[in-house]
Amino acid sequence: MQEEELKAFFTRDRLAALLGIELESVGSGKATARVTLSDKHLNGVDIAHGGTLFTLADFAFAAASNSHGTVAVGINATISYLKPSRAGETLTAEAVEIGRSHRLATYEVRVRNQTGDLVALFQGTVYRKQERLADIAP
Amino acid sequence: MQEEELKAFFTRDRLAALLGIELESVGSGKATARVTLSDKHLNGVDIAHGGTLFTLADFAFAAASNSHGTVAVGINATISYLKPSRAGETLTAEAVEIGRSHRLATYEVRVRNQTGDLVALFQGTVYRKQERLADIAP
Amino acid sequence: MQEEELKAFFTRDRLAALLGIELESVGSGKATARVTLSDKHLNGVDIAHGGTLFTLADFAFAAASNSHGTVAVGINATISYLKPSRAGETLTAEAVEIGRSHRLATYEVRVRNQTGDLVALFQGTVYRKQERLADIAP
Amino acid sequence: MQEEELKAFFTRDRLAALLGIELESVGSGKATARVTLSDKHLNGVDIAHGGTLFTLADFAFAAASNSHGTVAVGINATISYLKPSRAGETLTAEAVEIGRSHRLATYEVRVRNQTGDLVALFQGTVYRKQERLADIAP
Repeated sequence: MQEEELKAFFTRDRLAALLGIELESVGSGKATARVTLSDKHLNGVDIAHGGTLFTLADFAFAAASNSHGTVAVGINATISYLKPSRAGETLTAEAVEIGRSHRLATYEVRVRNQTGDLVALFQGTVYRKQERLADIAP
Repeated sequence: MQEEELKAFFTRDRLAALLGIELESVGSGKATARVTLSDKHLNGVDIAHGGTLFTLADFAFAAASNSHGTVAVGINATISYLKPSRAGETLTAEAVEIGRSHRLATYEVRVRNQTGDLVALFQGTVYRKQERLADIAP
Repeated sequence: MQEEELKAFFTRDRLAALLGIELESVGSGKATARVTLSDKHLNGVDIAHGGTLFTLADFAFAAASNSHGTVAVGINATISYLKPSRAGETLTAEAVEIGRSHRLATYEVRVRNQTGDLVALFQGTVYRKQERLADIAP
Repeated sequence: MQEEELKAFFTRDRLAALLGIELESVGSGKATARVTLSDKHLNGVDIAHGGTLFTLADFAFAAASNSHGTVAVGINATISYLKPSRAGETLTAEAVEIGRSHRLATYEVRVRNQTGDLVALFQGTVYRKQERLADIAP
């Protein structure tokens, strides 16, 4: 699939849309997503919610793992929080494929703030179905 | 802290509020959160977004880990997806403390649907600060 | 497969044998393994090595996930250390299946000491092959 | 601490010694460990045991996290298996610090075989005590 088709497919992700998370780029086994933090992304102590960081990383992970044109579904994921982020900061999640076999693939996603500091490290694994993404796209 | 104070504190969580996630109960080392899935919680293939399940579990985890009255901050978390969920389903996340020392504590969160099927399993660890929650509450 | 056949199959696990880890029981989707800690299981600060706890839990996980008679291979695993253990203690790992589909299954393993305290919590996921265990057994 | 002192300290790790795992190098926030696989490192299906890969990675993680001269204790770790390894192969685990605060630090460890293929990816977090390593060394 071409980048434009993949980007169009991912506009269907409603949680990402609700949170203002944008897919910047997606290529073979990799993707980058971005969000600028505002009030709605925060937890009770005014820092970026774990769910915000996870959703940002997960979105890049989903794009990277579906980039080969077949449907990939998440099996599990882990996230480590390295540095707190606050409203006004812009975060970028970069997903990279670190292993892929016929049925499984694993990705690492690094979330950085606008000054390049590592904010979170995410690792996720997918099950790769035979179904083609194009067959379920609109 | 009493349950009502803890519940009041967690109304400050803006991501949970945006997603319509409610804190049902919170006690010493445990908490339960709930959400009814609608369109906004879905990903591109019309199932509950990993970020939705994670945020729901993370909210119960945050409430349980802060229930002792001192501030607890997330270090890392892992989630396994066991069964897909769709719009209209109601999910409940139940967090239980499985270990706690002076500075660290670990929680397990089970996310179930309305028929009791396990949808996701989450495990998270916090660093426990000395600061009291009451001192940062409104 | 019957319990005796499964137990016979797992005597082939040479790392478990080297560490004196015994398979106590194995049934449909569950298994229990045990080890008594001695000097060889320790790290540089005289407590049970993370590798010892992991191998013990992993062995119970392997037995539980292969208990259905088809070959299961580990995809990933996570372990949390809850309490240090020392030479002379006996640890028991109990693996329980928490989710299983056609191709994937997830297990939780609780490692306890002889007084029942939780020492470690392990969670692992396997890919289930179609190959039958009996076909590769001796 | 100097590299030679750190290496001397880690000869106290009895599980690593039993498995023939060697600490190749250790510097500020990083370390490399190596093992050549033989029969004793295998599981029931003749590939490197998850416990072998974990112990190798964990040893590099322990060395890297204790390299700053204060005692670091493991909180939790996660490992993904990317490629099976067999007897005769030489595996190298390289640990790198990806985040460090006053009390916590996180490391990523990549395990590669002799041809450079990624065999496993490990991520671990420690709690950093105030106690100095030199005070507990022999």
